[in-house]
Amino acid sequence: MEHIFSYHSLSAFTKAIFIAIGCDDASAALATEVLLSADLRGIDSHGVARLSGYVRLWEAGRINATPHIRIVHETPSTAVIDGDAGLGLVVAPYAMEVAIRKAQTAGTGWVSVRNSNHFGIAGYHAMMALQHDMTGIAMTNASALVAPTFSIERMLGTNPIAVAIPAGTQPPFVADMATTTAANGKLEILQRKDAPAPLGWVQDKDGADTTDANILKKQGALLPLGSDREHGSHKGYALGSIVDIFSAVFSGASYGPWVPPFPAYVPMPQGMPGQGLGHFFGAMRVDAFRPAQEFKEHMDNWIGRFRNATPAPGHERVLIPGDPERETEAIRAAEGIPVVDSVVSDLRELAAKMNVPFPAAMTA
Amino acid sequence: MEHIFSYHSLSAFTKAIFIAIGCDDASAALATEVLLSADLRGIDSHGVARLSGYVRLWEAGRINATPHIRIVHETPSTAVIDGDAGLGLVVAPYAMEVAIRKAQTAGTGWVSVRNSNHFGIAGYHAMMALQHDMTGIAMTNASALVAPTFSIERMLGTNPIAVAIPAGTQPPFVADMATTTAANGKLEILQRKDAPAPLGWVQDKDGADTTDANILKKQGALLPLGSDREHGSHKGYALGSIVDIFSAVFSGASYGPWVPPFPAYVPMPQGMPGQGLGHFFGAMRVDAFRPAQEFKEHMDNWIGRFRNATPAPGHERVLIPGDPERETEAIRAAEGIPVVDSVVSDLRELAAKMNVPFPAAMTA
Repeated sequence: MEHIFSYHSLSAFTKAIFIAIGCDDASAALATEVLLSADLRGIDSHGVARLSGYVRLWEAGRINATPHIRIVHETPSTAVIDGDAGLGLVVAPYAMEVAIRKAQTAGTGWVSVRNSNHFGIAGYHAMMALQHDMTGIAMTNASALVAPTFSIERMLGTNPIAVAIPAGTQPPFVADMATTTAANGKLEILQRKDAPAPLGWVQDKDGADTTDANILKKQGALLPLGSDREHGSHKGYALGSIVDIFSAVFSGASYGPWVPPFPAYVPMPQGMPGQGLGHFFGAMRVDAFRPAQEFKEHMDNWIGRFRNATPAPGHERVLIPGDPERETEAIRAAEGIPVVDSVVSDLRELAAKMNVPFPAAMTA
Repeated sequence: MEHIFSYHSLSAFTKAIFIAIGCDDASAALATEVLLSADLRGIDSHGVARLSGYVRLWEAGRINATPHIRIVHETPSTAVIDGDAGLGLVVAPYAMEVAIRKAQTAGTGWVSVRNSNHFGIAGYHAMMALQHDMTGIAMTNASALVAPTFSIERMLGTNPIAVAIPAGTQPPFVADMATTTAANGKLEILQRKDAPAPLGWVQDKDGADTTDANILKKQGALLPLGSDREHGSHKGYALGSIVDIFSAVFSGASYGPWVPPFPAYVPMPQGMPGQGLGHFFGAMRVDAFRPAQEFKEHMDNWIGRFRNATPAPGHERVLIPGDPERETEAIRAAEGIPVVDSVVSDLRELAAKMNVPFPAAMTA
């Protein structure tokens, strides 16, 4: 069962919650925009469904609502930022702005971040570069749910990579992907439906194939993109590792099995080698490589050609990365955002606890 | 049937061939080192097995043995290089040196290359950064063998990504991967053995699953990493696309279905939107992010922890990206390089044609 909320009402509620935990007005507005970009784009697992989780992290003293975010190291094209345990939803856009500023003078900008928290969807941050005629890159590590190839131990998060590339008359190319076969959010959808997971998404505690969508609660693990060695899981494992190293070994954040968990009830890892979560951002000016107009004409040509690739029987068309999310965003901005029953209940409880009015749904 | 050759004898032969097509001594030596790094590291499909293919491209006028490689555009952290149709084996190290030089002053360096040819293994170029205490990145597009998710048309090459990250006492982290489920070289091995391919590696001309290892000769296609939509092939498709765009749309090389083919008997694509193949390189100074010593200690800790992750039953240990290739290199540098019968015959013919003596094998 779903309820439809207008973007405006969900946004006002979310902002009021961030203000209630002590964020200033600008930070609360920014955190809200980043968080709800997930709901608009159809990545429901990373949007308002996580709001109460962020509040619990704040209650547990793991999120600082008034951080002093600062650059601790820099060169003409790089910076390292200390997020002061702030909301990743606020720290990440700050860091991406620094990457964009560096790119304006040096051609490219690269920023690694320590002492942060979960930053919403990677795609939001990568897409910040587009309005500056830049390619944007965003990645983050996350708490360990993924077993490397040949391992039964959870060592990596779903560690997403997002890349946004501007075009001319075509919409931009926007890839935003977990480096696992399936994102954890997809598994959670199956858990709610009590449905089995496809083979190749998860393994059990002994490393055996399983279709049990609840296997992560039984010491199982998500599998890297590729699923098994024969189908390239060592590549997904390498990609997740690169995200972890760029985000955390570069910056001084915690990494691998020591990344702080999102659920506030899970104890912090012992012997953390760094501070908080880590992120990594890049911005590359289009005209640092070739004239912007020329670049955009070729991007339009690239996108047009791929969109017109011959579809396989049973498929209407070939998609460009970013197409499904952009189409969902257009619909949801106009018609409202569906929120499932369990999330609505959770948000009502949160509203009561924080003494913030909960908005009425457009439909029930 | 295999013959073992010493590295020295294969190297002298390969260099003599490059000199025979008109390369100067330094270029021939460099091209040889890059090409044979594949044989040393166990990536047999990209080494001396391709030497006669490079010569046929030169005969067809598609490779310029005496290119004027030059920077055509630059900013403090970026450059675009025109390879003047040179051997990618020579153009790529030139471009990587430019990236490294940019990084020395700007913190990072990023170079996109047009008008080049096949560059051997991506890992060689990425690893050039290691001796400078830098992380190295290398990627290239290649002729279209891969169908995007939901398509039956070949639109992308196997478009590899390599990332090399220095460590302290541990060997470096070196990932070098095609963005497909299986590299084309692995399919070629099955073809030689007349063995079936695992499901998920290739599809037939109608997009159906097949185990036919010869399906590429029948309008079939390689599949992006992830194999099918349910297992994340849209992510492999996005990764291959990013490599294509960074390598070619950034630089003015040809892209997508218009990338020039490696076999010289295949006609050049009609209506190419750019010049030759494209590559993309990156170099990031370790100390552009944190003090080198501190970085290396944490990389050692990262590698040590992952190497000691609990192995799954039936597996002795968890590998770090680069472990298998490094171990092969140590063995082959000492004991020689195995070359299969069919490649030896091909090289003997090449030797006769180019009037270069062919070395004796150590064993037969």
